[in-house]
Amino acid sequence: MALDYRNSRTPEAEVDSMFIDRWSPRAFSDKPLTDCQLAGLFEAARWAPSCYNEQPWLFIYAIKPKDRERFLEALVPGNQVWARRAPVLMFALARRRFQSNDKDNRHAAFDTGAAWMSIALQARRLGLHAHAMAGFSRQKAYKILNVPENDYDILAAIAVGQRCEPSVLSKEVAAQEKPNQRQPLVNVFAEGQFKKLV
Amino acid sequence: MALDYRNSRTPEAEVDSMFIDRWSPRAFSDKPLTDCQLAGLFEAARWAPSCYNEQPWLFIYAIKPKDRERFLEALVPGNQVWARRAPVLMFALARRRFQSNDKDNRHAAFDTGAAWMSIALQARRLGLHAHAMAGFSRQKAYKILNVPENDYDILAAIAVGQRCEPSVLSKEVAAQEKPNQRQPLVNVFAEGQFKKLV
Repeated sequence: MALDYRNSRTPEAEVDSMFIDRWSPRAFSDKPLTDCQLAGLFEAARWAPSCYNEQPWLFIYAIKPKDRERFLEALVPGNQVWARRAPVLMFALARRRFQSNDKDNRHAAFDTGAAWMSIALQARRLGLHAHAMAGFSRQKAYKILNVPENDYDILAAIAVGQRCEPSVLSKEVAAQEKPNQRQPLVNVFAEGQFKKLV
Repeated sequence: MALDYRNSRTPEAEVDSMFIDRWSPRAFSDKPLTDCQLAGLFEAARWAPSCYNEQPWLFIYAIKPKDRERFLEALVPGNQVWARRAPVLMFALARRRFQSNDKDNRHAAFDTGAAWMSIALQARRLGLHAHAMAGFSRQKAYKILNVPENDYDILAAIAVGQRCEPSVLSKEVAAQEKPNQRQPLVNVFAEGQFKKLV
């Protein structure tokens, strides 16, 4: 089945196509992941690099209908409408302090972002897509997931599944269903010292 | 040339080998990157996902000897000894506030971590390695890079280059020259709600 969208992303430099082919759809099939697929996502996260190899990430996931309903309650309505179809919902958490010495870990969010990117790329390797969301209530998420707020930061909600035809979405949401663009490459880097964006 | 190390990492679940093959060596050849390779690293970062597609990352890099010397000064001595051989040094920065509305961006470090992971994986695609470091003086880095501290958070230093024989390192540093291990997979995820690590 050819899915109805066009990836109009044009890289400015030669790069592995996996980075261009990863995007964040909203139209998910409700087809469940196999145990092997789900474990593969976490395995990818597991090998991400981290400060002092602390591995500060924790991914709390929902696949059972009851758990997914609970997780959905923490999302903003604009995300609930499409994320309820996804067979896997997750929250990405980072431990605030090092396990070794209980000091603040200033790098926990950065490292957990690396683990999240691994999940997103491994999802594509499995023919799946992952879509991270900032649109959720932290307060609700702490309560729903029973997370000790002093110990962990809840950084993102994530939906994972197989993409399907945008026709499952409302017209308004379906209209957004394409890979988004980026700032010019020149805004990503600076040589030698800080520069302002163009 | 067969390089002297063994990757003894054993995944617990089936996962793309790129995640296992990415690690953080210290023995770098001083062979420069081509312009095309360097641009490819930033291009990979460019397509990372981010909250509201803000793309809060900025990578400040050094390839000229004078710039690399300056950047090295911000690293802790334990990193200076090996990172001075790497042909590319970078710092990963995240904008603290959204460009659209000037509000705090709570997701900037997480998103910049995703962009960093893209660089690390693209480096492997090019036969290179990237090694991120928390061991640097933030105060020195702000000064050396001329970064407005109110606007940007400096999250990590990064060395990129081609790996070489560990014999270029001191005995002490060479002894660490192998891919490190991870916590059990079961510590990466929890179903339904928070759980403590095993």
